[in-house]
Amino acid sequence: MKTHPVSILAVGSMAFDTVQTPAGKAEAVLGGSVNYFSVAASFYAPVQIVGVVGEDFPKQHLGWLSQRRIDVTGVQVVAGKTFHWVGSYDQNLSEAKTLSTALNVFEHFNPKLGDNHRHAPYVFLANIDPILQQSVLDQVNSPKLVACDSMNFWIAGKPDELKKTLKRVDILSVNEGEAYLLSGQRNIIKAAELIRAMGPSVVIIKRGEYGAMLFTPNGMFIAPAFPVQSVVDPTGAGDSFAGAFMGFLAEAGADRKMAQEDPRQWENLLRRAVLAGCVMASFTVEDFSLHRLMRLENDELVGRQHSLINMITV
Amino acid sequence: MKTHPVSILAVGSMAFDTVQTPAGKAEAVLGGSVNYFSVAASFYAPVQIVGVVGEDFPKQHLGWLSQRRIDVTGVQVVAGKTFHWVGSYDQNLSEAKTLSTALNVFEHFNPKLGDNHRHAPYVFLANIDPILQQSVLDQVNSPKLVACDSMNFWIAGKPDELKKTLKRVDILSVNEGEAYLLSGQRNIIKAAELIRAMGPSVVIIKRGEYGAMLFTPNGMFIAPAFPVQSVVDPTGAGDSFAGAFMGFLAEAGADRKMAQEDPRQWENLLRRAVLAGCVMASFTVEDFSLHRLMRLENDELVGRQHSLINMITV
Repeated sequence: MKTHPVSILAVGSMAFDTVQTPAGKAEAVLGGSVNYFSVAASFYAPVQIVGVVGEDFPKQHLGWLSQRRIDVTGVQVVAGKTFHWVGSYDQNLSEAKTLSTALNVFEHFNPKLGDNHRHAPYVFLANIDPILQQSVLDQVNSPKLVACDSMNFWIAGKPDELKKTLKRVDILSVNEGEAYLLSGQRNIIKAAELIRAMGPSVVIIKRGEYGAMLFTPNGMFIAPAFPVQSVVDPTGAGDSFAGAFMGFLAEAGADRKMAQEDPRQWENLLRRAVLAGCVMASFTVEDFSLHRLMRLENDELVGRQHSLINMITV
Repeated sequence: MKTHPVSILAVGSMAFDTVQTPAGKAEAVLGGSVNYFSVAASFYAPVQIVGVVGEDFPKQHLGWLSQRRIDVTGVQVVAGKTFHWVGSYDQNLSEAKTLSTALNVFEHFNPKLGDNHRHAPYVFLANIDPILQQSVLDQVNSPKLVACDSMNFWIAGKPDELKKTLKRVDILSVNEGEAYLLSGQRNIIKAAELIRAMGPSVVIIKRGEYGAMLFTPNGMFIAPAFPVQSVVDPTGAGDSFAGAFMGFLAEAGADRKMAQEDPRQWENLLRRAVLAGCVMASFTVEDFSLHRLMRLENDELVGRQHSLINMITV
């Protein structure tokens, strides 16, 4: 049994989202990669957020996060407005169309870690400028496991910087289109192998409603999405996937050392972590913003995990 | 142990295909749903084909099929030309664009079963006019298991006739788009349940490069496609999926009676049959026409089955 809870440090965007989907519209609701990540991860392990918001960011949001073993002392509140993303999804719900992006205070985000953040054993670098991702890695004190996310904007705009980040991370998660862009390969197996050669020994390729693929030194694991009856808003599915994935590994104490010393156990935990990610994402999409995760009960989580395993067992 | 080999009766199109894909072009090669189905199924069980070709159909094709425990005595050779489909696939390889369809002798196809066909315990009705599918069912003598396929053309064009067919089959396989059209539902779970309520107790929804979903009285099974490094031509993937699926069930002696008497065993065999289908389809797409299946060795088949199971095991 663990005597001390293991913390995950998560760095990324905190935002307001205004989202239109076939199911309806949500105006300036809580969003941002690090919020989705942290709430999802907090079902498994304590989290520390490093991010930035404007003075318009409601205090109750931070208070609510704090109540869920999420440390928000690393959230800078600065003069100006919070990042605000406006987007919409059409009938097939597979890809967001960005209508406007007001970076606001996030434009000058420069993550500064306090002494209480430097020793987190698990680090997640959400989708931010790869230069900032490296700055975070410069500030932490030898974490046991580092994962990161990225997106087309950085893959196309700062490929060399992103490749420097990739040399320093254990795990990368991207979606299919991003994997193709990053690798220059249209075949998913070849793309994943090329990306693994860039640094991360574990690559996760997210496939939206089709689930996710895990590539490790041991080969490939293919997980389906947990099928839901009603998708309200896909926003945050990828970040909450990453949160549950990383939270699961943190709770299990799985790290880079285990990868060397007990590769079978490492592989098994990675696979179960991917399923945990798929399950968490399936809850996220059932409502706007973090609403579904806010009311998610642990027995629902466990129930869906068992169901998903049943759906892939022969 | 079985003392007599169990036969599958397969009724559908025999064709020449001319196909252009990013990997190249094939001119007037052997195609047609029943050919893909039969060759795939013949790895598991003997098959009897009922179909029609023109006088231009090369004798060596029939000879080659005969050498693979495929009975071609039900193939009518009539005056005129063989069905010829011309299509192309773009870079993403997910959906064929039909450039021309010359039905030729297939336009007046009227399946007539000989005495040697009426007692096949397994019947597969490939994608043909639902009126002809019913005519086949009128001619067979209480098969143990009946599966069918269909497509948008019949779902939209002859919905009432198709629904009469569905009342008489155990298993339906369709792709995602067809499931949505047939059910009027955009959600895959709801779509499958509505289709099951139309008759077939087992519904398979094929998802191309993402694999297939199986819906049974016991719930849902989600199988990934077996990922291949190079997709040359997706034509015939769905029909060879169905062939291996049905062949696997026939070889195992799984039928409607087992569904009642041993539902757990039935469920397990259905799941394994879906994986067999995914594996067979993965070989089909590696070359044009039936070329890859023609040179497929049994140990390759078994190897890929083990790999696929490993890719979904936690």
